[in-house]
Amino acid sequence: MSGIAYDDSNIFAKIIAGDIPCFKIFETEHALAFLDAFPSTEGHSLLIPKASGYATVMDMPPDVAANVLSELPRLARAVKKTTGCDGVTILQNNGKAAGQEVFHAHFHVIPRTNDDALMTLPKGASAMISTDVANPLLERMKANLD
Amino acid sequence: MSGIAYDDSNIFAKIIAGDIPCFKIFETEHALAFLDAFPSTEGHSLLIPKASGYATVMDMPPDVAANVLSELPRLARAVKKTTGCDGVTILQNNGKAAGQEVFHAHFHVIPRTNDDALMTLPKGASAMISTDVANPLLERMKANLD
Repeated sequence: MSGIAYDDSNIFAKIIAGDIPCFKIFETEHALAFLDAFPSTEGHSLLIPKASGYATVMDMPPDVAANVLSELPRLARAVKKTTGCDGVTILQNNGKAAGQEVFHAHFHVIPRTNDDALMTLPKGASAMISTDVANPLLERMKANLD
Repeated sequence: MSGIAYDDSNIFAKIIAGDIPCFKIFETEHALAFLDAFPSTEGHSLLIPKASGYATVMDMPPDVAANVLSELPRLARAVKKTTGCDGVTILQNNGKAAGQEVFHAHFHVIPRTNDDALMTLPKGASAMISTDVANPLLERMKANLD
């Protein structure tokens, strides 16, 4: 788990409760898709679980992740078709260190155009990971699986 | 759909086929999690569908998205526990404009630490989106839902 307490008064909880309006794209039993109110670029949208209690993706049970994220391709297609963008970035931030600002798990769907310079994956190592580095790390990863 | 043809000779297809090794964290019927071979930071991992044919997330049917992404919380938790990071970024790039390099849909799980400056969500508008802008956009989004 993330260790981040869920605060019922977060803005997405208020949107789900109907206390604050949103520009709703679609809604299912489990998920809500709407326009980001402070878009990085036109068409920037969000996909969130309607259930409360999940501050980050790490807090989401498998069935919640499945029921929400089964809608991710459909939202990404609508964003691409609507904006005519060249590509789409899915971004999901967990924790302040990752830039998370609202502590109800949410997936950003961000239209990209060639050379928009909006954001890039940080450059990885120039050399492939070595087995000396990878194998001990891998053992720790496996030991930490729940 | 993304409009990007799936090339069976991409490196992740070869990993799934067992033709190229990977540092495998776990595997389910539908998903494979492994260490990124060119990590942005220690613990940088990938989650991919084992089925071939999906160049981007936009090409993934709902059930494939559900079956793969139900594993995303578990992988993110293992990455966080293993690295002791402060946060986790989930990043999924679709199309060259978004920085995609391997055209088999994949989700990056990237450990973050406070002030690592690895990447940030591009700054959104300083003012909230207006209804004059949002409403026509919203109608186009709804019309483009499949």
